[in-house]
Amino acid sequence: MNFNMKEAIEVLERTPHTLECFLSGLADSWLQCNEGKGTWNVFEVIEHLIEAEKINWIPRLEIILQEGESKPFPPFDRHSHLNQRSESSIEQKLLEFKTIRLLNITKLKGLIEVESQLELAGTHPAFGLVKVRELLSTWVLHDLTHIAQIVRVMAERYREDVGPWKEYLGILKR
Amino acid sequence: MNFNMKEAIEVLERTPHTLECFLSGLADSWLQCNEGKGTWNVFEVIEHLIEAEKINWIPRLEIILQEGESKPFPPFDRHSHLNQRSESSIEQKLLEFKTIRLLNITKLKGLIEVESQLELAGTHPAFGLVKVRELLSTWVLHDLTHIAQIVRVMAERYREDVGPWKEYLGILKR
Repeated sequence: MNFNMKEAIEVLERTPHTLECFLSGLADSWLQCNEGKGTWNVFEVIEHLIEAEKINWIPRLEIILQEGESKPFPPFDRHSHLNQRSESSIEQKLLEFKTIRLLNITKLKGLIEVESQLELAGTHPAFGLVKVRELLSTWVLHDLTHIAQIVRVMAERYREDVGPWKEYLGILKR
Repeated sequence: MNFNMKEAIEVLERTPHTLECFLSGLADSWLQCNEGKGTWNVFEVIEHLIEAEKINWIPRLEIILQEGESKPFPPFDRHSHLNQRSESSIEQKLLEFKTIRLLNITKLKGLIEVESQLELAGTHPAFGLVKVRELLSTWVLHDLTHIAQIVRVMAERYREDVGPWKEYLGILKR
């Protein structure tokens, strides 16, 4: 196992600013393209990241610390953000993500004081017993998954434009 | 076809700063992990991006503009950076990438003055005829491919740490 709080936080604290650097000011054509019917555009991925900050990571950590294995987490509806479309700009959404992430990292540092807490377990509605360490590792990989998704969605726009180079571009392999 | 110079440059000019935000100051454990024997770590991906700036995109564009279809591009050895390992820090490498990318975007803007130049063709050593538009689209998707690779390589470190969540994390599907 490689999980380590300090290194996990290094990634968690970089994601919002990284996405801000990459996405602020981009043309709508990049932000609103998707991979076809039923798939998310960049905007929707950011909304999903915000939603997960609100109802997933820290709330689940608090349930484990307060209730242990006795109370299953409420399920996380991974599509809930699609029902509450807002008119915010991408810059406003990225600021919202940055703000709530910063708050959650502060909460995380307050909640986990000793290494042994990483082995505490809670009950996931689908998986059963899960450990704090697994929850926090997943938080990090959830960021990485959605960064990969964002660049993959954008790459899709130029699938035909690259001509024969399609063969060399791993991101178009799907 | 979706390619458009202004939008392509939006991505090209954001990549170096985005990678700087994400990678500067990260623990070596993130920068030096890879996906197994023969695969690249984050450091090597950045070296490859620098190498491509030096010998691929702008040099090939110049060959097309100067020689047309008559002179094939020299092949681009995608592993050449592995033979010249340096002792630079990741921050130095990222600065080098940012500097050469900025220079190349300036060159690009000087070289492409009218839309019709996008349809000019050169000869790729493996593919035969390729257009300027295809070369420039590929430059953009090459950035996106390697951003996706960086986060995928980092995600690999926590493959086991996430426990049962592995099932939900697209980035671990390979």
